[in-house]
Amino acid sequence: MERTLKLTVAYDGTEFHGFQRQANALTIQQVLEERLAKIFGHPVKVAGAGRTDAGVHAYGQVVSLRTTGSIPTDRIALAARSVLPDAIVVTAAEEVDAAFHARFSAKSKIYYYRLDTGPVPDPFLRNYAWHLADEPDAAAMHAAAQRAVGEHDFSAFRAAGGAPVNPVRTILAASCRRDGPLAEFSFWGTGFLYHMVRNLVGTLVDVGLGRINEEDFAAILASRDRNKAGITAPPQGLYLKQVLY
Amino acid sequence: MERTLKLTVAYDGTEFHGFQRQANALTIQQVLEERLAKIFGHPVKVAGAGRTDAGVHAYGQVVSLRTTGSIPTDRIALAARSVLPDAIVVTAAEEVDAAFHARFSAKSKIYYYRLDTGPVPDPFLRNYAWHLADEPDAAAMHAAAQRAVGEHDFSAFRAAGGAPVNPVRTILAASCRRDGPLAEFSFWGTGFLYHMVRNLVGTLVDVGLGRINEEDFAAILASRDRNKAGITAPPQGLYLKQVLY
Repeated sequence: MERTLKLTVAYDGTEFHGFQRQANALTIQQVLEERLAKIFGHPVKVAGAGRTDAGVHAYGQVVSLRTTGSIPTDRIALAARSVLPDAIVVTAAEEVDAAFHARFSAKSKIYYYRLDTGPVPDPFLRNYAWHLADEPDAAAMHAAAQRAVGEHDFSAFRAAGGAPVNPVRTILAASCRRDGPLAEFSFWGTGFLYHMVRNLVGTLVDVGLGRINEEDFAAILASRDRNKAGITAPPQGLYLKQVLY
Repeated sequence: MERTLKLTVAYDGTEFHGFQRQANALTIQQVLEERLAKIFGHPVKVAGAGRTDAGVHAYGQVVSLRTTGSIPTDRIALAARSVLPDAIVVTAAEEVDAAFHARFSAKSKIYYYRLDTGPVPDPFLRNYAWHLADEPDAAAMHAAAQRAVGEHDFSAFRAAGGAPVNPVRTILAASCRRDGPLAEFSFWGTGFLYHMVRNLVGTLVDVGLGRINEEDFAAILASRDRNKAGITAPPQGLYLKQVLY
């Protein structure tokens, strides 16, 4: 009897070369497929909702897979802990309709991006946030981020040299709030271009540091010109927080 | 002109074999001595206040050293950032009396120990807290920890096979409080035996999980018998928080 399963997966991406399988580099997908095969009793292929890059983390990556194995669905999360490395944790497992696909069924996603705003870089945050040399203005970054909310052509924030896809995406909500030594961005959108969150953050940090203002940010978005935007924020601050279906 | 310097150092101990120099294993002391030599312009020896074990962390380790180098004291912390790996950060530097010694001048120390009490182990805490299979009662652990406050013979909580030193130590304050998914112990004492904090935590967790009660904990302390106490809590939950002079 074949079941389709939806697994929610949290991982510390520090030691992995991203989610998607690659030759000659250890990825989350490879580890999941190799290790989960042991609990299902047959080779498995997993489809991920988002292709996180090397060093990018997840609280709520979603993968779908098909299995003919006999393990009860409510035992999968615990069994997965016995076969997976500590850096990858299956937090939930449920049986879903055979038509479910982690990527194609997703309606929206939430990403977090964390800045270490302390005067001295915190050694415990070096793999989990982007430390800035100066303290950014979180309120100014929050205000500017509102200009990205809605349906826009995000060509100014797409990866240079990326595949030619439709650059129009919708951001449903965006925020930046202080949380102790951290400043945390949240972006909820129906879809994101490759590197779009990191490129938005790189330019919003320019606002936070006073290099440009909110109107400049809006003008960069409207220009659809990648060369006008800021740098790509480094990967270790980025988290795939949640995938909504 | 020789100066004696006191440096406060934070480090993520995950990738190091403890503080103290060893042959054939990378330690915090070795990295500090090799890298700081570059900013002082001569070989340096550092003395640490506490010898943290492999995987143990520090927010406020203190090291003392002597230098004839010309770098102004107020430039040392920033200069150290350019030569040290991101996992080790000099957070403060000050010139002190020539008689100062990080270890022998210390009057008391504060250690933290963190438990991950979530139902599923958090992959981001795997190197920074001890995950327990069941949720412990923080209030019960806090109450039992009060029985360790004061001057006691801590033989029940010393490392098995440790060097024969006077086992009497004074704990000035102890606490356990919940902080989101974490439970955090704090121990402030004038001195600690080798593995004493980790052994106390191992036995306090037995209280928190209901395996023994507060009176049992007090009886184990009074017994001075290491065999009666619980396990040594794993190193990754331990932090040298502060050294007081």
